[in-house]
Amino acid sequence: MADKRVNKVVLAYSGGLDTSIILKWLQTTYGCEVVTFTADLGQGEELEPARRKAELLGIKPENIFIEDLRDEFVRDYVFPMFRANAQYEGLYLLGTSIARPLIAKKQIEIAEKVGADAVAHGATGKGNDQVRFELSYYALKPDVTVIAPWREWNLTSRTRLIEFAEQHQIPIAKDKRGEAPFSVDANLLHASSEGKVLEDPAAEVPDYVYSRTNDPESAPDTPTVISIAFEKGDPVAIDGQRMGPAALLAKLNELGRINGIGRLDLVENRFVGMKSRGMYETPGGTILLLAHRGIESITLDRGAAHLKDELMPKYAELIYNGFWFSPEREMLQALIDRSQEFVTGEVRLKLYKGGVYVIGRESPYSLYDQELVTFEEGAVAYDHRDAAGFIKLNALRLRTLAQRKKKLGL
Amino acid sequence: MADKRVNKVVLAYSGGLDTSIILKWLQTTYGCEVVTFTADLGQGEELEPARRKAELLGIKPENIFIEDLRDEFVRDYVFPMFRANAQYEGLYLLGTSIARPLIAKKQIEIAEKVGADAVAHGATGKGNDQVRFELSYYALKPDVTVIAPWREWNLTSRTRLIEFAEQHQIPIAKDKRGEAPFSVDANLLHASSEGKVLEDPAAEVPDYVYSRTNDPESAPDTPTVISIAFEKGDPVAIDGQRMGPAALLAKLNELGRINGIGRLDLVENRFVGMKSRGMYETPGGTILLLAHRGIESITLDRGAAHLKDELMPKYAELIYNGFWFSPEREMLQALIDRSQEFVTGEVRLKLYKGGVYVIGRESPYSLYDQELVTFEEGAVAYDHRDAAGFIKLNALRLRTLAQRKKKLGL
Amino acid sequence: MADKRVNKVVLAYSGGLDTSIILKWLQTTYGCEVVTFTADLGQGEELEPARRKAELLGIKPENIFIEDLRDEFVRDYVFPMFRANAQYEGLYLLGTSIARPLIAKKQIEIAEKVGADAVAHGATGKGNDQVRFELSYYALKPDVTVIAPWREWNLTSRTRLIEFAEQHQIPIAKDKRGEAPFSVDANLLHASSEGKVLEDPAAEVPDYVYSRTNDPESAPDTPTVISIAFEKGDPVAIDGQRMGPAALLAKLNELGRINGIGRLDLVENRFVGMKSRGMYETPGGTILLLAHRGIESITLDRGAAHLKDELMPKYAELIYNGFWFSPEREMLQALIDRSQEFVTGEVRLKLYKGGVYVIGRESPYSLYDQELVTFEEGAVAYDHRDAAGFIKLNALRLRTLAQRKKKLGL
Amino acid sequence: MADKRVNKVVLAYSGGLDTSIILKWLQTTYGCEVVTFTADLGQGEELEPARRKAELLGIKPENIFIEDLRDEFVRDYVFPMFRANAQYEGLYLLGTSIARPLIAKKQIEIAEKVGADAVAHGATGKGNDQVRFELSYYALKPDVTVIAPWREWNLTSRTRLIEFAEQHQIPIAKDKRGEAPFSVDANLLHASSEGKVLEDPAAEVPDYVYSRTNDPESAPDTPTVISIAFEKGDPVAIDGQRMGPAALLAKLNELGRINGIGRLDLVENRFVGMKSRGMYETPGGTILLLAHRGIESITLDRGAAHLKDELMPKYAELIYNGFWFSPEREMLQALIDRSQEFVTGEVRLKLYKGGVYVIGRESPYSLYDQELVTFEEGAVAYDHRDAAGFIKLNALRLRTLAQRKKKLGL
Repeated sequence: MADKRVNKVVLAYSGGLDTSIILKWLQTTYGCEVVTFTADLGQGEELEPARRKAELLGIKPENIFIEDLRDEFVRDYVFPMFRANAQYEGLYLLGTSIARPLIAKKQIEIAEKVGADAVAHGATGKGNDQVRFELSYYALKPDVTVIAPWREWNLTSRTRLIEFAEQHQIPIAKDKRGEAPFSVDANLLHASSEGKVLEDPAAEVPDYVYSRTNDPESAPDTPTVISIAFEKGDPVAIDGQRMGPAALLAKLNELGRINGIGRLDLVENRFVGMKSRGMYETPGGTILLLAHRGIESITLDRGAAHLKDELMPKYAELIYNGFWFSPEREMLQALIDRSQEFVTGEVRLKLYKGGVYVIGRESPYSLYDQELVTFEEGAVAYDHRDAAGFIKLNALRLRTLAQRKKKLGL
Repeated sequence: MADKRVNKVVLAYSGGLDTSIILKWLQTTYGCEVVTFTADLGQGEELEPARRKAELLGIKPENIFIEDLRDEFVRDYVFPMFRANAQYEGLYLLGTSIARPLIAKKQIEIAEKVGADAVAHGATGKGNDQVRFELSYYALKPDVTVIAPWREWNLTSRTRLIEFAEQHQIPIAKDKRGEAPFSVDANLLHASSEGKVLEDPAAEVPDYVYSRTNDPESAPDTPTVISIAFEKGDPVAIDGQRMGPAALLAKLNELGRINGIGRLDLVENRFVGMKSRGMYETPGGTILLLAHRGIESITLDRGAAHLKDELMPKYAELIYNGFWFSPEREMLQALIDRSQEFVTGEVRLKLYKGGVYVIGRESPYSLYDQELVTFEEGAVAYDHRDAAGFIKLNALRLRTLAQRKKKLGL
Repeated sequence: MADKRVNKVVLAYSGGLDTSIILKWLQTTYGCEVVTFTADLGQGEELEPARRKAELLGIKPENIFIEDLRDEFVRDYVFPMFRANAQYEGLYLLGTSIARPLIAKKQIEIAEKVGADAVAHGATGKGNDQVRFELSYYALKPDVTVIAPWREWNLTSRTRLIEFAEQHQIPIAKDKRGEAPFSVDANLLHASSEGKVLEDPAAEVPDYVYSRTNDPESAPDTPTVISIAFEKGDPVAIDGQRMGPAALLAKLNELGRINGIGRLDLVENRFVGMKSRGMYETPGGTILLLAHRGIESITLDRGAAHLKDELMPKYAELIYNGFWFSPEREMLQALIDRSQEFVTGEVRLKLYKGGVYVIGRESPYSLYDQELVTFEEGAVAYDHRDAAGFIKLNALRLRTLAQRKKKLGL
Repeated sequence: MADKRVNKVVLAYSGGLDTSIILKWLQTTYGCEVVTFTADLGQGEELEPARRKAELLGIKPENIFIEDLRDEFVRDYVFPMFRANAQYEGLYLLGTSIARPLIAKKQIEIAEKVGADAVAHGATGKGNDQVRFELSYYALKPDVTVIAPWREWNLTSRTRLIEFAEQHQIPIAKDKRGEAPFSVDANLLHASSEGKVLEDPAAEVPDYVYSRTNDPESAPDTPTVISIAFEKGDPVAIDGQRMGPAALLAKLNELGRINGIGRLDLVENRFVGMKSRGMYETPGGTILLLAHRGIESITLDRGAAHLKDELMPKYAELIYNGFWFSPEREMLQALIDRSQEFVTGEVRLKLYKGGVYVIGRESPYSLYDQELVTFEEGAVAYDHRDAAGFIKLNALRLRTLAQRKKKLGL
């Protein structure tokens, strides 16, 4: 790829050692102008140090872009995804996957603004993130040049990376000299860890890997009871207090963190073809998923609910694989959103030592009709005798099959 | 229906008050011979009292059938279902649904043996169980006459039922005179409760409804760590000790009970069209589901795993709706079973105050290949540069779409 | 059901003998006011005779409703369904199924207007149409009383029906005295025939059953070539001439009729549980389906197209089963419609003796890019070497599986 | 790739100019021993000339493998696929896709036998066939080296190819000097053509491209009526005459050819990301598909049939994309095969000028029950009154939804 000419590249820049090395490598390898983009997605790091570091590495002030994306992230990416109750491979809440398209989108917007012809990211050549970044880039700017340094350079060991950094006067924090025992990705939805100490799927995740949640064993001995209010499928308030998207998710994270909620030790299948083992902490998301299912349980019709359930794995797979900006994801989103019109109401939950329990739900639009359910015959729609006909016709084809078997002596 | 002539009917008989009333009602209404069938599916009740009660109500000894079905139930119904990771509406482990086909099958077998022309059950006219019983009956004996007393008789209140019982000298336990505050179904997989005190979905399930599990809050303060061994998708041993199907599930239930695992408060959509609220306790099943997903995570290929995930909701719906004995359930089972050949190995889990956590898994057939995952470039199959081509071709159609948009100025 | 009190009923009235008998039977059985609704859906019959007949049978002029629904039918029902390429059981174009919801909707609208508390239809108790009518009624007016005379009355033979007609001075055309050799349903989309002479699925459909199409053998010896223009998934012009929905479909019907297109002899599975054999003639629809697939083939992305194909059987089943007015059909429609934004362009077709052949398609929004396809290497997006990486990563999991097999000596 | 050392390579060799060039290129580029494999899959070419040509190009006799795979191809690949009624993108019968895995499998078998470490094919770098070959290679021999000359060499124009051929004394037929106006793939199931003159999707396919079928316009004026007998989902006889798989398909091809059946002009979506336009002739397959659907229509239960229909697009996509030897294809096959046990009987069809019409079907296992369908009430399973209950319960949730709307004044 280094054979392609590049004039200006927008780099997804965290301010950390690795993306600083990339920054320098881009300058030296491509001889191009580097524009940095640093986003706050709730990863829990200051952004200003990233600005100072970029300046230090010679980036012109007008080429440094820093943006707080927390509300946009939660409102336009996390919440739409939770409307679908998305879980990859039955369990993973897609915390990393859902952040990539937004970062990519912003890089492309900046590229258009500053007239850059390339974008670059710091994802490795074995993971899913390279795919998520690049599919998004291409979907939004088909003629963009994509630079993925980890696939291109020869800095293929920690030693070489450190050498390169020293050679180019990139400051190296002491604890970054050696290889990290695991790598971390974090945003407002989750923190994920993988690599090194986590690579043996038979070995328990060491305590020190967790950063977002209390160990359930050291969580409070008394449960926390909360209520979450939903409007059209999205959470809008906790315990009666309305909050913006990011504030609300942050609050759920705090509640989850305290109560040791949302740890997941998983072996998953990557889009690039191999299995990997990761540890995820999604405190607020874990609460949100169950709360959303709770409010749907009384406001969503069976036909709508089952259709959503059948399509969820495909929807989750699309997001995991990086196809957020694809027609099929958008079509599924249209289908899902169509179902959420009346998903409004309140869910009460108990949080306790790693567990989330829905203990009550109510809605002005509830389809739960006590009249229909009580065992005493009411004046209403349901007539016991209807059930006989219902069963008879549902059984008809099974009886015909059985008759055939009988005729054949089977 | 009472206009149909019936000679001999096989009744699913629990020995309780309700099915005793049904027994008498069948005799008096249809004037037919009644054959009772009482099964042990692990509901936790003695069977001999049922025999004595049947005799008391005038059933001839040769017409009383009592059978211990626990191993058959777990081996041929529960385990095949867990191979699919089946959860109805995302959460319910189908404990009631999966027991009905087996009871129905046994009733039909007895009917064939004793020459009965009818079968009867004690399920009400508003629930799913009537459907599950009757679809199974018809699928196995298409010409059978089905009697569902709750849909036919006029004993439509507790008062009338008690009157009828008194009239016919059916013994009534004191606590059965009034209406039960909720109704219970139980077997080796789960106990479910619904009705009356549970009917308001906004109100928390009262403590006294739980019967199978400790409250997480009063569960032990120290976690239990166990290992479950699987062979071809089915659990075969706990902590290295091989056990038969029923014994194994009973052991998991005990472990789950102690640690407060498997409580579920759910509003679900019934096949007959209304929503209902139930409380389920599935201690062993909850552990089993996560353990099975755990062993699959290292032994199942992505293609197989995702196909299973996509089809699971339909499979679960079929069981919930009573279509166990249908071609489509059997076809799906063939697909699922085909995938389990190498789902063999061991999973370690931590059980703690309501939570189940997979903490390790290993298998002689593991597809998890540390060589492929380590970040250092290996000599093996994975070449970083392949990722570039992979992404490029996956992106091609998205770029073409973007080009169209661009051309249109959108 | 005749035990229910009914004040005013809106009857779907064709003016034919059967619905005239129903009209009288409703008056005599329920003693209620009858409101007739006669719609033109392109069945090819005059409507004014229906008015005269209704008057003759004592219906007050203000209770006679007659409406030309052809454009609404095609625009709001047929075209949306064709956007999905819907075919039930792989072949049937759903001509009857799609008309029922519209008729039902109009009956309910009239019921609301005239203050009727009931609706009635002339569909038999063994078919799908009763389900389609009634599910639509209930979905639009949940408290309506539904009267289905064929399920209620004792006019269970042709002889009795004729007796009843004579008794009540209902005029009987000579050819209606005996039993019809088959029954017909017709509208602008299709004509279907079933019953009697068609009941043996081994016997060929007799010539005289066809009414809408030439026998391919007697169709012209020279092909007709036409072009159909689409906008956002719907056809808008034939051979450059813009037409309204009904006119356009009528034109396609005429072209299809001449060329012997759209005959289908089918054994299908009814929703009520049995198989039935029908003969369908859908001349215009058969052309439209292939034309629509043709324009989609160059304007729809693969992801969108495959998602549509996977969901089509479910969508078709919903319409067949009568769930047009259900959340799940509406959700699927939202998904489908989302995909049609650029399904605009022109398709050329050859019609010849029963066959329809797409011979060309073009669009201002075509995604077909000759640059990408030509075998000579271009300057463009596609690099042959990318294919190697693409294949390698797609193969990775298969190689891992093969390695396992090898290790095991399998 | 040419950097990899290769000792012995098994080449899929047709004997034509292109694979002869590849043969030579492999020898000169890799300096390795070349083993040729030439298969008869019914492409309609002599195999002995390929042997002579291989010898001429210096291949040792023991390194020339020639095999007649026609029966294996049809029995183990074509027929299983037709059990699924597979059509890619609604129309394409997958004639090319289904042949690749078999050729690949044989190459790998030979590689194992002769101790070769590599395989090579003549598919280009822009098509699907490279993917199908290579996924199959890797799935069967994970450590094999794959050589795809069209992606590696610099013979990127016709001129260079011819130069190379001349340089290496490869005989060149006169008509091969210029570029072919289109490229062809053929086997017993179909012939496909693409490229050059077919590249404009708006332009009609020229007459001279067709090779397997009469133009419908010049097909006989009298229809041919045939009957096909099926056993467990596979065709076994035509007009009462039992035939082996290849003979039977050849006979259907002949019948189809005469009657101008099975032409398809299609724009499809390739797995590698772009659209392409192809012309397919599948005379026998087109007849077979309709015949199979015909026999299924009376022998397959609705549940089984609809499940198959829902999964078919995914199954077809897997085959199209080259995943024949994948767990998910095998799982789907297990599901499909499970359904075919009673798909036995006879279908009569009329073939006429491009059209195939099912005109009758019968089976000893027919589920079509005339008793159930006749309009006169029978003594049997179907009671009209059951329909009322059936509809009522199916409508219940729709009524609840409507009640909510009403309550909200919507």
